[in-house]
Amino acid sequence: MNKLMNLRTLFLIVITLGITSEIQSQKVNVEDSLMMRAIYDAALLEGKSYSWLDYLSNEIGGRLSGSLQAEQAVSYTEAQLNELGLDKVWLQPVMVPKWTRGVKEYAFIETAPGISSTTDICALGGSVATPDSGLKAEVVEVSGIEDLERLGRAKIEGKIVFYNRPMKANVINTFEAYGGCVDQRYAGAMEAAKFGAVGVIVRSMNLRQDDFPHTGSMTYGDTPVNERIPACAISTNGADYLSSALKLKSDLLFYFKQNCKTYDDVQSYNVIGEITGSVYPKRYMVVGGHLDSWDLGDGSHDDGAGCVQSMEVLRLLKKVNYKPKHSIRVVLFMNEENGLRGGTKYAEEAKLKGEKHVFALESDAGGFTPRGFSIDANKANFEQIVNWKALFEPYLMHSFELGGSGADIGPLKEEGMVLAGLRPDSQRYFDYHHAANDTFDAVNKRELELGAAAMTGFIYLMDKYGTKTEVSSIKK
Amino acid sequence: MNKLMNLRTLFLIVITLGITSEIQSQKVNVEDSLMMRAIYDAALLEGKSYSWLDYLSNEIGGRLSGSLQAEQAVSYTEAQLNELGLDKVWLQPVMVPKWTRGVKEYAFIETAPGISSTTDICALGGSVATPDSGLKAEVVEVSGIEDLERLGRAKIEGKIVFYNRPMKANVINTFEAYGGCVDQRYAGAMEAAKFGAVGVIVRSMNLRQDDFPHTGSMTYGDTPVNERIPACAISTNGADYLSSALKLKSDLLFYFKQNCKTYDDVQSYNVIGEITGSVYPKRYMVVGGHLDSWDLGDGSHDDGAGCVQSMEVLRLLKKVNYKPKHSIRVVLFMNEENGLRGGTKYAEEAKLKGEKHVFALESDAGGFTPRGFSIDANKANFEQIVNWKALFEPYLMHSFELGGSGADIGPLKEEGMVLAGLRPDSQRYFDYHHAANDTFDAVNKRELELGAAAMTGFIYLMDKYGTKTEVSSIKK
Repeated sequence: MNKLMNLRTLFLIVITLGITSEIQSQKVNVEDSLMMRAIYDAALLEGKSYSWLDYLSNEIGGRLSGSLQAEQAVSYTEAQLNELGLDKVWLQPVMVPKWTRGVKEYAFIETAPGISSTTDICALGGSVATPDSGLKAEVVEVSGIEDLERLGRAKIEGKIVFYNRPMKANVINTFEAYGGCVDQRYAGAMEAAKFGAVGVIVRSMNLRQDDFPHTGSMTYGDTPVNERIPACAISTNGADYLSSALKLKSDLLFYFKQNCKTYDDVQSYNVIGEITGSVYPKRYMVVGGHLDSWDLGDGSHDDGAGCVQSMEVLRLLKKVNYKPKHSIRVVLFMNEENGLRGGTKYAEEAKLKGEKHVFALESDAGGFTPRGFSIDANKANFEQIVNWKALFEPYLMHSFELGGSGADIGPLKEEGMVLAGLRPDSQRYFDYHHAANDTFDAVNKRELELGAAAMTGFIYLMDKYGTKTEVSSIKK
Repeated sequence: MNKLMNLRTLFLIVITLGITSEIQSQKVNVEDSLMMRAIYDAALLEGKSYSWLDYLSNEIGGRLSGSLQAEQAVSYTEAQLNELGLDKVWLQPVMVPKWTRGVKEYAFIETAPGISSTTDICALGGSVATPDSGLKAEVVEVSGIEDLERLGRAKIEGKIVFYNRPMKANVINTFEAYGGCVDQRYAGAMEAAKFGAVGVIVRSMNLRQDDFPHTGSMTYGDTPVNERIPACAISTNGADYLSSALKLKSDLLFYFKQNCKTYDDVQSYNVIGEITGSVYPKRYMVVGGHLDSWDLGDGSHDDGAGCVQSMEVLRLLKKVNYKPKHSIRVVLFMNEENGLRGGTKYAEEAKLKGEKHVFALESDAGGFTPRGFSIDANKANFEQIVNWKALFEPYLMHSFELGGSGADIGPLKEEGMVLAGLRPDSQRYFDYHHAANDTFDAVNKRELELGAAAMTGFIYLMDKYGTKTEVSSIKK
């Protein structure tokens, strides 16, 4: 090889680099395309998320904050993250509420003395118990909190308020339909108590007709302790039956007994693992789900799926030999369901330590076939992400829309940061949400893995290119 | 009102009409948008498809061509269509093959004399029976038909060929993964017989590990009757077990007995209903699915779902008070699974009668959340359809791609005609396809209804605007 050849080679290299940098600014470049393929292959051919979920769901089970199972889940996931050979794995202490359901609830509808039929209910999370002998009263059916004022104390006092507004079946986005009803569950007891109600029954937030009552969080606000009334959920079938029975006999009696109890806060943990960044070790990207769940099922969709997908993101990055520029953290948040203490704690500590977070991604909408991401970002950052759409379309990810992200990562939000949520197909999500049928068999391995792969692809692109805000701040 | 006003009014009307016609040529017009909304509301708030499917699946069950259940399904759907007040409902006679499974199959793997374990199998559709005493032989595992030549007669003669190439998990489109394996099922026995094999076992076309054997059609081609060898499917778990056992003991014996039989063809029917067109009564648009199914499950996804969705299209058009310009037919095709006689017959008769078909839409990919349509059309017709995409996107229908349509409507194809297939999420489809777990409980009401609504919207737009080919032929 002579000098001329060397110069020619150098010239070619310069030209090539020029072209490469040109290509990199295009929507899809070959390297990214190949990386996406490698990620999906690893996820679908040798994924770990499903076996992790099997353990979390079937060996541990429902993971209510403060429960033994929640602590077992902390230990298990910490141990699994340690096996991945990450740069750091640790537990972040966080105090969480401890509410227990106690002995299973019992309820019946009594249409005449001695003539009654039992119905399945469950206490809402955070509800007080009924008296030891249970609670029996007449029922007043309403279609929402706004009906209380109209009825007035005269028609409510001493009665059980039955909130029966169903989720709207013709709303295509099921989360929107949920949003249109959940005030009944969250604030129904607090509001009914103001009119002298003695208890509350809430129609389950479920688009399907079945026999599962769905629990979920509720608040008493600043209602004094001795004025708090017990609140339960009734299944959609049960709600329809009760409503029909009331039409035939408006003074029927409803009996229920629940044995739930709130204890002092207890110690728990967020579980965190990190691959330290090769270029920007002090800039962080988070991917996570919440490790706690309700207690009726085993929390496979909500949110075991999101946890194991998030763990899988870090495993896949290592598997495909990608060395992130930023520090990538998986965070399994504790206590999303009834307190958001984990998410709040993580954000507080990040702020205290001055940890710069540029991106956070949460999966907390079930382990169904992923259809896209919802993005909480400024215009420039959002447009950058939309430009990557072509990289995701071969994997049937079509939807990249401005919107919410995830509850746990919300507290991290600051100007210029990008938050995002995985958006799986949600048509069946509320069939299982917070109910006894949210179990491992309701999750499909392949659909779960497709979600983990999509999340990994997104983290890869965000890490490689940075957010627009970040890039311009580095340039300055 | 004076004359000037009248003229002014007339002028305004002319202007308005001009604007309206301008708007109509745009991607989305308000009228179409409102009609889509009305269709979805009717489908989701007062749909009939799910209760029809309940009857077909739970009261009738699997509907193998030539079976009593297939004939019950003909009577039931004819009666239901009659109740819709269509302009015409009739049965189109078609001769269909009659193959019966007989007494349930039985199989075991014998690793040593007296040491055996049973395994679940099912006869492939159209297979011959084993001898009355069953068939016991050594097994040679291959990963496809192409391996037979390499092994040669010496290693195959007198043995059972075990086709064990799995569906590729990293292929995102599951139908493509199916296409990459199904030759083993369809032609495996015919090809193995050429090398002296005495029987065939085929790994089920299933992306999931479970214990369900999946049946499906097969051919003997022109193999003489006395040289035809029995063929069965084994579950994915069973296939992995057999493969492992062969690694430990290559001369193990496989025993199976199946009792299937092929009879002479019998009379059956396509079920057809029609709303006669108000403008072009002699131009036809077809929407359909196939009424027959395999016999192991109740054929809810394949293709009870497509049948009830197609029936629902005509019901919804009436419900929203839309009067089609073209004659819209629902066709429930008989015998898609093992003969395609219904689809062939319908096309033959249409041709004989000179019935001009401009559009046909089939739903035969399961009752899952719809994600789009695949379109078989020329460029102009395809582009017209893609322009309607914005009308579907609020309903999470993103995918409009050139590709196949449906087996039953394929024979109708002619130049300038548009064929299309509903494309639901397919990630779980092959978990159920042709297996005993393809049952009613695997179909979600809401997902089924979303498919019916999408199909109705598509038929509405095609009817209202016509295909580009049709419009230009009318203009001429």
